[in-house]
Amino acid sequence: MPALPAKYEQLTREARPGAVLGAAQRVLSWDQETMMPTNGAGIRAEQLEMLAGMVHERLTSAKVGDLIAACESDKQVMSDPLAAAGVREFRREYDKKTKLPKSLVEEITKCSSQGLHAWRDARAKSDFSKFLPHLEKTIELARKKAECFGKPVGGELYDALMDEYEPGMTSARTAEVFKPLRAFTVELLDKVRSAPNKPSRAAAVAEFPIEKQKDFVAFVVKAIGFDFDSGRIDDSTHPFCEDVGPGDVRLTNRYRANGWADSISSGMHEAGHGMYEQGLNHDFFGTPLGQYISLGVHESQSRMWENLVGRSLPFWEWATPHAHKMLGGGISKYYASDVYKACNLVEPSFIRVESDEVTYNLHIMLRFDFERAMIRGDLKPKDLPGEWNKRIKADLGLTVPDDKTGCLQDIHWSMGAVGYFATYTFGNIYASQFWEAMAKDIPGRDDLMRKGDFAPILKWLREKIHIHGRRYGAEELCKMITGSTLDSAALMRHLSAKVRGVYGV
Amino acid sequence: MPALPAKYEQLTREARPGAVLGAAQRVLSWDQETMMPTNGAGIRAEQLEMLAGMVHERLTSAKVGDLIAACESDKQVMSDPLAAAGVREFRREYDKKTKLPKSLVEEITKCSSQGLHAWRDARAKSDFSKFLPHLEKTIELARKKAECFGKPVGGELYDALMDEYEPGMTSARTAEVFKPLRAFTVELLDKVRSAPNKPSRAAAVAEFPIEKQKDFVAFVVKAIGFDFDSGRIDDSTHPFCEDVGPGDVRLTNRYRANGWADSISSGMHEAGHGMYEQGLNHDFFGTPLGQYISLGVHESQSRMWENLVGRSLPFWEWATPHAHKMLGGGISKYYASDVYKACNLVEPSFIRVESDEVTYNLHIMLRFDFERAMIRGDLKPKDLPGEWNKRIKADLGLTVPDDKTGCLQDIHWSMGAVGYFATYTFGNIYASQFWEAMAKDIPGRDDLMRKGDFAPILKWLREKIHIHGRRYGAEELCKMITGSTLDSAALMRHLSAKVRGVYGV
Repeated sequence: MPALPAKYEQLTREARPGAVLGAAQRVLSWDQETMMPTNGAGIRAEQLEMLAGMVHERLTSAKVGDLIAACESDKQVMSDPLAAAGVREFRREYDKKTKLPKSLVEEITKCSSQGLHAWRDARAKSDFSKFLPHLEKTIELARKKAECFGKPVGGELYDALMDEYEPGMTSARTAEVFKPLRAFTVELLDKVRSAPNKPSRAAAVAEFPIEKQKDFVAFVVKAIGFDFDSGRIDDSTHPFCEDVGPGDVRLTNRYRANGWADSISSGMHEAGHGMYEQGLNHDFFGTPLGQYISLGVHESQSRMWENLVGRSLPFWEWATPHAHKMLGGGISKYYASDVYKACNLVEPSFIRVESDEVTYNLHIMLRFDFERAMIRGDLKPKDLPGEWNKRIKADLGLTVPDDKTGCLQDIHWSMGAVGYFATYTFGNIYASQFWEAMAKDIPGRDDLMRKGDFAPILKWLREKIHIHGRRYGAEELCKMITGSTLDSAALMRHLSAKVRGVYGV
Repeated sequence: MPALPAKYEQLTREARPGAVLGAAQRVLSWDQETMMPTNGAGIRAEQLEMLAGMVHERLTSAKVGDLIAACESDKQVMSDPLAAAGVREFRREYDKKTKLPKSLVEEITKCSSQGLHAWRDARAKSDFSKFLPHLEKTIELARKKAECFGKPVGGELYDALMDEYEPGMTSARTAEVFKPLRAFTVELLDKVRSAPNKPSRAAAVAEFPIEKQKDFVAFVVKAIGFDFDSGRIDDSTHPFCEDVGPGDVRLTNRYRANGWADSISSGMHEAGHGMYEQGLNHDFFGTPLGQYISLGVHESQSRMWENLVGRSLPFWEWATPHAHKMLGGGISKYYASDVYKACNLVEPSFIRVESDEVTYNLHIMLRFDFERAMIRGDLKPKDLPGEWNKRIKADLGLTVPDDKTGCLQDIHWSMGAVGYFATYTFGNIYASQFWEAMAKDIPGRDDLMRKGDFAPILKWLREKIHIHGRRYGAEELCKMITGSTLDSAALMRHLSAKVRGVYGV
């Protein structure tokens, strides 16, 4: 690899210790979720707070700021495309981190911590009134935060919040991309409802011992390309992927006796995140060129492996015989097509994280609209439950029985994460766009999958997406790869085809 | 708990961040040994080095030094026995950490790192000449280090090295304590050799599935009192105990198909270390009053549970029926007395870590004598293999076949740990002394063990030893508890009784 300009290298050296400590912090946090005994919680909280402070201090130091400025006025740096992209992103991060006054950061931290407790309590009792004051405070603080970041020219405050998770994205663009998708999905749901035959879910809910399921998930995750020399997989209540450092990416998964198909999905989902992290350029660790682009692009990787690979018929044509061997017993009577259909049923439901590939985006679009309206002031937090239930009725035809099954189901707002939700659907959209573009480069893709050869898919993702880190913006990269920016048409084509394959309509 | 004097509290507050970071460092190090994937090694080394530097910087800061000095001249502090003890130990640590010039520390670090590589290579090839230059350098640097610490009045350089692991201990005292033990052991071995009947090892080497062994070890470790809300047990190549913070003590163990009895021993050994850490006063975390006294006392706790409990007949009278239930199969034909005898065979062997309770100390005494002689200059490193083999012949009657089975077997010197070995035998001695003293306070101890009631033993250890942290020195505490300082008589009585029980001689 050619050396980057001297001034830029100086900046990356200055940034490295913060990144190294940040990675240490992630090991501690992973350990907290997976390994730590109950009574270790006290000191762990103290360690995480201390490290967070130290990381923040290093990444926002005047020296880093000065070096960014020096790079910006250094011709050698700015005429090098890689270095210039790095500087642009260093600047974005630095500004984000330094624009908030300390008092606001502290207020937000306190509000999140109290909000989390209040939300757990409210959800347990399905009592929105217990969470309402915290939601109001969260929206107020999010607005203050957005004001500090500054709204983009011609944009709205909410855009500044989205930008934290999906750099460069605006709410107007999002609304434009979501509009046809919502109408399409509602219509597609009608089609599904009117389908003459409903496939059986039986193959997906057959019971198997957890240990066998674990072995099978590990086998699949390894087969699709997750590198166990640079990662591992453990158990946790909620599956997640923690990139604890270059060469060390940790997945978790969960298992239920009758949930083997779900475990495969969540395992492949987390492995998709993990392989993105494993595919980043580790020479650029600790700099934007070694980091993922956006949550949307990250989610495109997890969704691609979960849905476009893991819920495809060719995948199950490969995987089903292995399932017969490894799970034994109750699976041997099912063919690949049974499993394929069983894990692709479309059924409107209340809970986002349990919903299918088609209805999932309706859950997201609801949240995006409501968040945006709350930040604008067009929706009062107190009116949320009523509006939520109306929308679920309109889009999914369901009557929400209580708030824990409705607007209290997600953790995000309680933690102060406003502007995050849309990235899930960006992920689904990008995944379909990339998948279509990839098909042109790998013409025999289905046959390869049938043989269990996933390497060409991963190679394509590595070369087209992973290796670039944050060099390009999300939509810019999408345009380079697919010829267009974010566009839900590919996702709609995919969902139509899926419904046709499963329901014959 | 009554508050300690203000000036002392100020010192402990100043020391806390270093301790908190030190605990974080231990989590990373535990993770490295147990969880980390291969390719995570690079960043982990960087993190550990960085944290080590930060911890060192905080613990050796001028501010800490000033506060120690301020405490030493503060009447309120020095007239409070707890605080005064804390200051004494803060001073000892601070001086140790600040007395070495940076250049020497760096030289030692470099030498250890190269030495470790050289040692692995030399051991693999059983070629002492490959390790010799590193051993020479290690001894030279150890001598320099000892000179920086300064030798005690009337003592020798080697004492300053021992003091790092066993504060207050000298080589003269050690030699005095070891002398009768060596003569006794050689004589006891002769007795064993002449015993008419040798018990069978069969019960200890019956084969069981590893998973069942793990469950059984966890069961035993929990039964003797290790708190799994404040700890866990995992696998590793070499068993160890890492106290990663208050309320979080991590054991590891290893398993072989035909090594269930060894796994119980090593599990109980590590749990003994772990229960000491769990029994420290966590209100004093990050200060000497919340730390273990010395490696010898630490080892006394592991050896007590491993040998005095775990290799006793009453223990196996309780454990054998559980083994029947949990391991099943090949163990059901053995009685408690079979297992007891099988795991107490005395057989001279070459490798320290595989040796039995009787011969173990001969291996240690050899190392102590040779280390001391090398530091004195009385033994040249190049002459080590010859002297080693002569001594093994004299003490154990064995002919060393090669250096990997001889003087290259231990990792310690390669890491620069000179002055450490004797603490293993101190542990055996202290354990026996404590065990005899405990018998007076818990008259029905054997019956309690037969019923699986180990709580009174742990309670005694907690109250007599654990809770005091570093308030008293090792020999001082031993005298308080047993009426005498370090004295091998109790160990000799224990070993005689053991040999009588197992061999009938």
